[in-house]
Amino acid sequence: MANEIPYKIYLEESEMPTAWYNFRADMKEKPAPLLNPATHQPASVDELSAVFCRELAEQELNNTDALIPIPEEIRSFYKMYRPSPLVRAYCLEQKLGTPAKIYYKFEGNNTSGSHKLNSAIAQAYYAKKQGLKGVTTETGAGQWGTALSMACSYFDLDCRVYMVKVSYEQKPFRREVMRTYGAGVIPSPSDTTEVGKKILAEHPGTGGSLGCAISEAVEYAVSHEGYRYVLGSVLNQVLLHQSVIGLETKTALDKYGIKADVIIGCAGGGSNLGGLIAPFVGEQLRGEAKYKFVAVEPASCPSLTRGTYAYDFCDTGKICPLAKMYTIGSNYIPAPNHAGGLRYHGMSSTLSALRDQGILDAVSYRQTEVFAAAEQFARIEGILPAPESSHAIKAAIDEAMRCKETGEEKTIVFGLTGTGYFDLYGYQKFNDGEMQDYIPTDEELAKSLESLPQM
Amino acid sequence: MANEIPYKIYLEESEMPTAWYNFRADMKEKPAPLLNPATHQPASVDELSAVFCRELAEQELNNTDALIPIPEEIRSFYKMYRPSPLVRAYCLEQKLGTPAKIYYKFEGNNTSGSHKLNSAIAQAYYAKKQGLKGVTTETGAGQWGTALSMACSYFDLDCRVYMVKVSYEQKPFRREVMRTYGAGVIPSPSDTTEVGKKILAEHPGTGGSLGCAISEAVEYAVSHEGYRYVLGSVLNQVLLHQSVIGLETKTALDKYGIKADVIIGCAGGGSNLGGLIAPFVGEQLRGEAKYKFVAVEPASCPSLTRGTYAYDFCDTGKICPLAKMYTIGSNYIPAPNHAGGLRYHGMSSTLSALRDQGILDAVSYRQTEVFAAAEQFARIEGILPAPESSHAIKAAIDEAMRCKETGEEKTIVFGLTGTGYFDLYGYQKFNDGEMQDYIPTDEELAKSLESLPQM
Repeated sequence: MANEIPYKIYLEESEMPTAWYNFRADMKEKPAPLLNPATHQPASVDELSAVFCRELAEQELNNTDALIPIPEEIRSFYKMYRPSPLVRAYCLEQKLGTPAKIYYKFEGNNTSGSHKLNSAIAQAYYAKKQGLKGVTTETGAGQWGTALSMACSYFDLDCRVYMVKVSYEQKPFRREVMRTYGAGVIPSPSDTTEVGKKILAEHPGTGGSLGCAISEAVEYAVSHEGYRYVLGSVLNQVLLHQSVIGLETKTALDKYGIKADVIIGCAGGGSNLGGLIAPFVGEQLRGEAKYKFVAVEPASCPSLTRGTYAYDFCDTGKICPLAKMYTIGSNYIPAPNHAGGLRYHGMSSTLSALRDQGILDAVSYRQTEVFAAAEQFARIEGILPAPESSHAIKAAIDEAMRCKETGEEKTIVFGLTGTGYFDLYGYQKFNDGEMQDYIPTDEELAKSLESLPQM
Repeated sequence: MANEIPYKIYLEESEMPTAWYNFRADMKEKPAPLLNPATHQPASVDELSAVFCRELAEQELNNTDALIPIPEEIRSFYKMYRPSPLVRAYCLEQKLGTPAKIYYKFEGNNTSGSHKLNSAIAQAYYAKKQGLKGVTTETGAGQWGTALSMACSYFDLDCRVYMVKVSYEQKPFRREVMRTYGAGVIPSPSDTTEVGKKILAEHPGTGGSLGCAISEAVEYAVSHEGYRYVLGSVLNQVLLHQSVIGLETKTALDKYGIKADVIIGCAGGGSNLGGLIAPFVGEQLRGEAKYKFVAVEPASCPSLTRGTYAYDFCDTGKICPLAKMYTIGSNYIPAPNHAGGLRYHGMSSTLSALRDQGILDAVSYRQTEVFAAAEQFARIEGILPAPESSHAIKAAIDEAMRCKETGEEKTIVFGLTGTGYFDLYGYQKFNDGEMQDYIPTDEELAKSLESLPQM
């Protein structure tokens, strides 16, 4: 396996990005604006600032500045766990017998176990800078809650995580990581909010839902002095922070003179994919290069592959701004699956615009084939991947196998967003042959889309 | 925090060691030999080869060759997860307000979650090279079993892990990682061995013990064609493989002109500590440098700090060779604690010899103070440490705080052997204030030492 390209490309600290890249600045046709759900007028920074930190609200609506400097404090934190390695999957290539060259950007080498920390630390920083006491959020699978707990602990911010009650009880270890980082973890629905009390009264014994947890987190933030609500995906600000993934990837590739052909990422709300492809999309938008960008989503929650491009509610509580996006309807409740991070009914409005403009491809996979790819990858490359990340693995392997058929020596880059250490219940189901696939029927999707707002 | 030394020192692949370092070759006074338990004569390679792979048996008894080349196949595997970073704990130093400089060698960035993989892949390689079908081992906490599963999967070897039944049931996720890597995981005691059947008959419903699991693993290996038994610590061969930790550490320090003053590692069987300090011990043995080496053990299992230096059984089944070591008696059953990797009654005979020769210091800590240090470290440095590793963290923090008192600018290096993602039950007990400390009385230790063999 003699090759000048090492197994893992680690950048020097001096090569780490000093500014995030906002590819909306290079889009000729901008993403559709967020709308106030009451007036249907574009949401302003002032409106968003009631819920979000002010600087984050500004980032949310900034379609013009390509480079947003990364504050020194955030860069210091990044240096504790970044740069993340760009790994050449020599072993996987060999086992597949493909002429393709496969690289993955691995974001799992931090305690939160995923890329979520890249945005969590940024959001915590701006909250601290604004003089806030704390932030609130919701968590389902727990990756985002863990990342935010770590970030708040670093900046001595109070962190209140509303955790879907069924997850709180079934994933005690995720909960303990958050508590170890000093976060308050509240099973949702709870009696700490009006909406929580109402749901508890109507549905005693309920296991909760992500929609309910969001509503509680938002209510607590807007009704308590010195608190704001933060979100781990979907939003433009999150994609912006996640551009650190793509910027490091591009620097690493450039350093070795490698040109990617295909860039693949899993997509739930879209933050990892949007971050990974950011600088490459920029090149393509500026006419400097051409890539195949692929979003990979679960067949059980197929917003990009089977959804509609329309304004929809971002939350089931219908209190957040409306976003134009690929959506399967805010009432859609995905069937149980083991990729908790890919269960959002919509998709980042910016990625949705790229899809609408023909720049972004999308595929979907069933979870059993995703877990089969995950297990194959774990055994060959030595990393136990998160179920979410494994969607990208499956797509990358399929692309590499097509290269084997055609003899093409494509360079495939995919995002390996995290590790599966807290997802072993899913692996157990798979190992025991008890995992099932769920694919919504056209009728179900059509019915769900009836919940779209009247515009 | 401007400084020429980066947060993380990553070596280039070309700087990774090509040979392990066997510091026994540089010891004037060699460790006492392993003895045949029946004859009390030094064990030969032939005798050891009945249980262990031949080349590993040779490594076990090799007191003369300082450098053992690392086979190309193992070096390739190492490149998938090594070099591991040597981290400058800037944030910890700042929070402690110490003039000391703190570095840690972090071995947790691989799916097994610890340094165990360094020896697992070597042992699997020699088993494959010898043409074996598979290997057997035991696991309690699960780190070693996971590492071996990964290594066997890479070389297509059968892997049978006897897992203490109570762990098998209480740690289903560790079990699932091993299964995902294709290992057969058998709750011990089992009906797959004579010793297992006997124990089941005598103690129906028992949760098993590490001693019983070892006995089953050894029995299966010696009674099945093409199988050998492998062990994850204590043995010289394991310390040899783990020298990759120290060699990388030394290269990284040398690259930046850093001279360590104090080198600290947790010690259960001693493999991580022995590997970390190996090249530095070599320098000291050759009179080229002087260091303070510190072994850190739990107060509940204090072999180095309160044990006797004597020949003892290595296993509770008393079938393995006798080793001269610091021991608290093979009948000693440590009180329950949450550092499962530090519950061995003895200590590597080579490290024991260093201790006897005045080269190795030792301290012990109670688990509550260890978890407090672990939580402090997690919040400041962003890594959730394994309870075992946290013993070294506690000792390093104490050393740094002494520097704060004296104003000394010592350079402290410690081994951060792994992550605590599968140890959250311990963190939960700590977070809930329910963790207790156990310290054996002098009477208990004296009684336990009555089980020493008559020599």
